[in-house]
Amino acid sequence: MSEEKSEVSEFINKYFSYCYQNDQDIIAFQNKIDKAIHAYLDSEKISSDVLLENLTQHFVNSDIPTQPASLDSYMDFINGILLPNIVNVCKPSYLGHMTSMIPVFYQYLGQLITQLNMNVVKTETSKALTLLERQSIAMLHRLVFQYPESFYQKCIQDQKTNMGLIVSGGTMANITALWIARNNALKEDSGFRGVQAEGMQKALKHYGYHDAVIIGSGLMHYSMEKLASLLGLGLENIIKIKLNESGAIDADELRKTVVHCKESKKLVIAIIGIAGTTETGKVDDLQSMAKIAKEYNIHFHVDAAWGCPILFSDKHKDILKGIESADTAIVCGHKQLYLPQGISVVLCKNPEQIDSIKFATRYQARKESFDLGKHSPEGSRPAFSLFLHAGLSLIGKKGYEYLIDEGIRKAAYLADLIKNNDAFELIEEPQTNIVVYRFIPEELREKCKKGMLTFEDNYVINSINEVLQDEQFHQGRTFISRSILRQTSYGDMDIVILRAVISNPMATEKEIEELLQDQMEIGRYILTKRQFSFPEVIKLLYQQTSSYYRQ
Amino acid sequence: MSEEKSEVSEFINKYFSYCYQNDQDIIAFQNKIDKAIHAYLDSEKISSDVLLENLTQHFVNSDIPTQPASLDSYMDFINGILLPNIVNVCKPSYLGHMTSMIPVFYQYLGQLITQLNMNVVKTETSKALTLLERQSIAMLHRLVFQYPESFYQKCIQDQKTNMGLIVSGGTMANITALWIARNNALKEDSGFRGVQAEGMQKALKHYGYHDAVIIGSGLMHYSMEKLASLLGLGLENIIKIKLNESGAIDADELRKTVVHCKESKKLVIAIIGIAGTTETGKVDDLQSMAKIAKEYNIHFHVDAAWGCPILFSDKHKDILKGIESADTAIVCGHKQLYLPQGISVVLCKNPEQIDSIKFATRYQARKESFDLGKHSPEGSRPAFSLFLHAGLSLIGKKGYEYLIDEGIRKAAYLADLIKNNDAFELIEEPQTNIVVYRFIPEELREKCKKGMLTFEDNYVINSINEVLQDEQFHQGRTFISRSILRQTSYGDMDIVILRAVISNPMATEKEIEELLQDQMEIGRYILTKRQFSFPEVIKLLYQQTSSYYRQ
Repeated sequence: MSEEKSEVSEFINKYFSYCYQNDQDIIAFQNKIDKAIHAYLDSEKISSDVLLENLTQHFVNSDIPTQPASLDSYMDFINGILLPNIVNVCKPSYLGHMTSMIPVFYQYLGQLITQLNMNVVKTETSKALTLLERQSIAMLHRLVFQYPESFYQKCIQDQKTNMGLIVSGGTMANITALWIARNNALKEDSGFRGVQAEGMQKALKHYGYHDAVIIGSGLMHYSMEKLASLLGLGLENIIKIKLNESGAIDADELRKTVVHCKESKKLVIAIIGIAGTTETGKVDDLQSMAKIAKEYNIHFHVDAAWGCPILFSDKHKDILKGIESADTAIVCGHKQLYLPQGISVVLCKNPEQIDSIKFATRYQARKESFDLGKHSPEGSRPAFSLFLHAGLSLIGKKGYEYLIDEGIRKAAYLADLIKNNDAFELIEEPQTNIVVYRFIPEELREKCKKGMLTFEDNYVINSINEVLQDEQFHQGRTFISRSILRQTSYGDMDIVILRAVISNPMATEKEIEELLQDQMEIGRYILTKRQFSFPEVIKLLYQQTSSYYRQ
Repeated sequence: MSEEKSEVSEFINKYFSYCYQNDQDIIAFQNKIDKAIHAYLDSEKISSDVLLENLTQHFVNSDIPTQPASLDSYMDFINGILLPNIVNVCKPSYLGHMTSMIPVFYQYLGQLITQLNMNVVKTETSKALTLLERQSIAMLHRLVFQYPESFYQKCIQDQKTNMGLIVSGGTMANITALWIARNNALKEDSGFRGVQAEGMQKALKHYGYHDAVIIGSGLMHYSMEKLASLLGLGLENIIKIKLNESGAIDADELRKTVVHCKESKKLVIAIIGIAGTTETGKVDDLQSMAKIAKEYNIHFHVDAAWGCPILFSDKHKDILKGIESADTAIVCGHKQLYLPQGISVVLCKNPEQIDSIKFATRYQARKESFDLGKHSPEGSRPAFSLFLHAGLSLIGKKGYEYLIDEGIRKAAYLADLIKNNDAFELIEEPQTNIVVYRFIPEELREKCKKGMLTFEDNYVINSINEVLQDEQFHQGRTFISRSILRQTSYGDMDIVILRAVISNPMATEKEIEELLQDQMEIGRYILTKRQFSFPEVIKLLYQQTSSYYRQ
């Protein structure tokens, strides 16, 4: 063996050896990772003030290194370049997205899952983990649909059926649910082998439809666009019902639209209710929607990616009333189940529905087997159901209830602070734990209070809030996100909003107060320290951003 | 606060505290996980001999526990029930699937990724990790397409474009590639807003097609069925070209089929080449396929989920000649890049292609941003690109070359052993590192050598191999998988094969020899110790399995 080759094989033997207990390099790497995690969690700022554009220089080498490298040198990269420039979403002052702190035990389960390298597509690479996945799905199914114990005893480990599917994320979960709905709506029929076999064109033709649509509110998640494209429906066949005064879907409009679709030979593949819109946390009137869906025999899908765990709260669970009538519902593990990224769940009220997307092969996912791959939309998959099972076991119903109740309580606290502070305007009363509001510059506070803001005023406020949120991220002491709402009390105009998501249980009243303090200072900073006088700000910001709001 | 509530909040505070350095429970949990991993890797058997059916009793509780639980009690479950009953795919004697040992450093990166909880859908929850993902994709793009340095310098961190996408697995990667191909094949046109906007039915009508098809060999991965359903094409529109004598797609047949589709107004959305079929590891003649695709202006997709890393090998890379002409290609991280489960990559030769599946929202994935979510088919995602970047950096080109070369070398070694042992029949000469063969019972060895096996003989051999593989998994000393091939030297009859995948570099000649020894013993065991005499075996196995082979 050449010297070079022998050096390479030395690295490979080190890295692939399962007897590494006494390997000093491996032990040192583990210790350094441990320290790096502590340093990251303890870091003072949410992120460094290096702009993304200036970071790119460290990530421009497209050549794969020739020789294997040492763990030490890679750790230098992690500690030197990478970790100082990521985002500390675990800090209690990070209140910006549906991503925040997760329980610290998950990192060790993450380590375990990674090294076991189980693949739950089939039992030959997972065995007991297949059963654990089925059990975890059943637990969530029961939370949502509350069938009697006898149902679960029968189905929980009956390999011929499945109550749901674990997928990589919320988008894939919505795609899967609507895939099931589409296949069931256009199934086999006399002289027709089903949309799965013959495709969309022939399916619509066979059933005499001009088009196939999905219907929901304008606040549906953008994964609906992805699935409308993917499933061959087309984005133009997403029908968005306007919101009522409380910010959720208008049920009367929904009924009218369904009737109109029937009359004009459009197949309604599903009515989609949202249990926690991404932007405002609002929950649709699921009961009314379920009733309409049932009346017209339409698949009712509930996107409860965010809101499903509200069911754990005795105090708040009624917000979700009607979800038990859904044909399919989804929930994201990485949202309010506080699991790591990478796991969402599709739940099917009636397990038989899943057969509409069943596939089998000859080397795995065999028909008679326990292999999860015969139903799962994905193939090879990590055993992340262990995350789910651990969360449900270690946090428990009462733990999740506490998390939900505290989030909603503190969101109300933030909303109150905003209402009592002229520097801010609350855009909508929060229904759950997302608060949408905006900063109002001093010059416009009086007009805002009197409800006399003009279109141009709102325009300026939009721009200032956008700059404020950018600057806040840059300064890195506190963080919230921003979005744009189209339907507010200001009519159909685009309103830039600041969006606080109160999910980290370590965020106390103190962090919430500091958030507003910080934003007031940043507001002053961008308007004075940058030496913009007010009319100039208007002009400048208008130029910078006009194309954006007008898109 | 009630006592119960205070106890719950104690658990929550412990689990969510980022200052857990001195928490004895957390430290103990980490140590126990560490020990559990070592015990798992050291375990003597591949799996316990408990049958899956008998394990189900431990996984039948569908009720979510009420109170939060201690880490100690959960560890008891992990050590007592779970880990003894999963599958040790890391053992060098596990040679059955594309899942095996991964480098031990990944577990600590898994720990890091889990606790950081970065979400690469947007820069506000990932920052530098967004740039790392772009860089990692570029590295693989360069490996496959070998554009000049100037191309990569220009594109690597240009947020307006993207050379590829990271997704959760190979199925999602194939779905994404064909989604891109479909949208580009049925794009905007005068009087038509594109399939993305208007859907499949109107798209086909506008362009005057009767149908839309995809074309590949009969050995295409079953994810093609999923995507044909999902994209609205229909399973009947997957055209499978027969194999030539060397076990890959027949190029003449492909051309004829393409011409026939054109003539009969069928749109060919893509021609699909396989670089490493799942069942046999064979690589299609990608050069001929690329030529045909180019001639007829059809999207050429290469499913290199398994085979792509063969490009690292100077000795073997020519097998993949033609892949550089693909419009899209995919590679799975968890296969021959030896990454943990959960990461595959779609590569687009021309970055502009990705625009056909672009989506933007107002709270993230904004058009002008670096947010990866504007192109990615999935939404929230873990930062698994760190796994990819670490693999490419720590193993390097030479490390991967060594892994590939050794796998192919040892597969040839196994094939030689089989050819020199009457108890086995090699079904196909291995082209890469997958070996397909079968066990021949003593009574039929002479006939097999002379090529005189009847249909009924093959039938018996099928059944015996099926039972053998089940028993081998049950006994747990060694492991390979099994499948069924339709096109072998035995004509169109189904042939059950044993399938060895030689990917663990720690599997030496010794393990390979032991595998065959073990199988010979098991063969004897099932035929004698179970006291079946030969004619009885035929009858019994026929009854047990006939519906299965005849499906």
